[in-house]
Amino acid sequence: LFSIMPRDTGFFDLFERAATIVHDASQAYATVVRDYSKRDEQISRIRQFEHDGDEVVHRTLEKLDKTFITPFDREDIHVLMKLMDDVIDEIDAASKRLALYQIHEPTPWIIKQAEILVRSSTLVGEAVKRLRNLRKPNGLQQKLVEIHLLENMGDENNHSAVAELYATTKDPIFAMKWKEIYDLTERAIDRCEDIANTIEAIVLKNT
Amino acid sequence: LFSIMPRDTGFFDLFERAATIVHDASQAYATVVRDYSKRDEQISRIRQFEHDGDEVVHRTLEKLDKTFITPFDREDIHVLMKLMDDVIDEIDAASKRLALYQIHEPTPWIIKQAEILVRSSTLVGEAVKRLRNLRKPNGLQQKLVEIHLLENMGDENNHSAVAELYATTKDPIFAMKWKEIYDLTERAIDRCEDIANTIEAIVLKNT
Amino acid sequence: LFSIMPRDTGFFDLFERAATIVHDASQAYATVVRDYSKRDEQISRIRQFEHDGDEVVHRTLEKLDKTFITPFDREDIHVLMKLMDDVIDEIDAASKRLALYQIHEPTPWIIKQAEILVRSSTLVGEAVKRLRNLRKPNGLQQKLVEIHLLENMGDENNHSAVAELYATTKDPIFAMKWKEIYDLTERAIDRCEDIANTIEAIVLKNT
Repeated sequence: LFSIMPRDTGFFDLFERAATIVHDASQAYATVVRDYSKRDEQISRIRQFEHDGDEVVHRTLEKLDKTFITPFDREDIHVLMKLMDDVIDEIDAASKRLALYQIHEPTPWIIKQAEILVRSSTLVGEAVKRLRNLRKPNGLQQKLVEIHLLENMGDENNHSAVAELYATTKDPIFAMKWKEIYDLTERAIDRCEDIANTIEAIVLKNT
Repeated sequence: LFSIMPRDTGFFDLFERAATIVHDASQAYATVVRDYSKRDEQISRIRQFEHDGDEVVHRTLEKLDKTFITPFDREDIHVLMKLMDDVIDEIDAASKRLALYQIHEPTPWIIKQAEILVRSSTLVGEAVKRLRNLRKPNGLQQKLVEIHLLENMGDENNHSAVAELYATTKDPIFAMKWKEIYDLTERAIDRCEDIANTIEAIVLKNT
Repeated sequence: LFSIMPRDTGFFDLFERAATIVHDASQAYATVVRDYSKRDEQISRIRQFEHDGDEVVHRTLEKLDKTFITPFDREDIHVLMKLMDDVIDEIDAASKRLALYQIHEPTPWIIKQAEILVRSSTLVGEAVKRLRNLRKPNGLQQKLVEIHLLENMGDENNHSAVAELYATTKDPIFAMKWKEIYDLTERAIDRCEDIANTIEAIVLKNT
């Protein structure tokens, strides 16, 4: 069932593996909405990423159980992993609905939001890498600040997108579909910010 | 106020009591949608189950406070109880909305989903019973796997139900009502899966 | 950036500061819906409260990190603060949407709900004050019971408001907007109840 990575890995490898999946899923989602005629292939890839994410979480729980001394609080390790998995789940849910609700074309807003998500996921990956050596954080704070700014931007965009949707559409079912897709996408961006907050808490406790 | 069970009970009794309420509430919900003309009586029963659930959670917190040595991590006991209460709350919310929104008849999809919920709740009860003796788990893993499969099925059904609803209805308010009822029902099934995950974590730590 | 309070404060000062912001935000929200022509000013104030809330949470996390002996469990301190911040966030989200969705006038239901929120926030403030001296709780239990009753009332109101909205409106987009605003407002009231539950747990552990 589970076979995407070698058995013997440390927590940092697992974090980076999860961050890579987050990034790949975000990238695939951006490709879905940018290159909509080829969406089916990317949506299947995202579904696979969702399974991969579950595997990494599962692997982390097993490792937590077998490991006496962990690099950070067990709870923080668990939360960090859970949040990365949540990002992937939200992306999977959003992309699935594009197909399920037979959305014929993406909106400019969803393209913008997917781009913000990619940028935030990239920063998450860079922040997670810096967990290996918190004594040399090497610009970590700056990454976290940028993730917060992107979340604010995503929030503003989401508000504008929904306000515009409600103000212009004549088809309420269409509005319901897009409201849900916009909200799921924004939630993926929010979870990236929760990751930044968790990393900040880990830094506080470990430096 | 609270009088449904004798005072002196152990944690396992409390778990099983909660699981029984989960199961009874699921069963009542399935009866609501299968035998819709008699729904009022079942919806009142569910409301009572919701109170009973609150009592068991409260009793568990009191017991946790008074007990020095607990069979599992305090946190896990708390989470497990909270999740069982959540299942009941979602069922209560869903069934209430059928009345409140003056839904005239159930859909085939909600009948299917309520049946999945009953099956999952039955498995939750069987899994919870096995917590008493984790050295003789007696097919526990198989129960947990089945709960996961049912959650997947519930998820797929929910997607199909909502897609069909949006594709066929001409009444957007009708669509809004059912979207909410479908989602609440699916969330009850999801919480059963969260229970399975929590039991899995308890097993990991205690064997 | 952050400057609303002096640096050297204890946990109880931080709790009370957060409770004051919760209360002020609720009051501003009630003013928005009661005196709708002057809403813009109050909505800006609420946005500022939202920032203030973030500051207090941040300050609490820093203090937790630097403090070896805390008055209650670290986890409970964190949860209590997080929940007060959540109340403020829900109020901010609800009030923003009134402007964003170009709602021309408030409904009688939202005025009722905002009043319940103010009453619940007042009780939260009174309950939080009593955390300083749990040996002289001075009517704390009564406050917590009242918060629960208000939550029940808020829940009933929300049901009636949405049922009426769906039964009477001919404009589904209008219904979608109000459904979201009602739900956000109810969630603010719910979070007050979660605060009461958290305080109850703190009392249990510390008396």
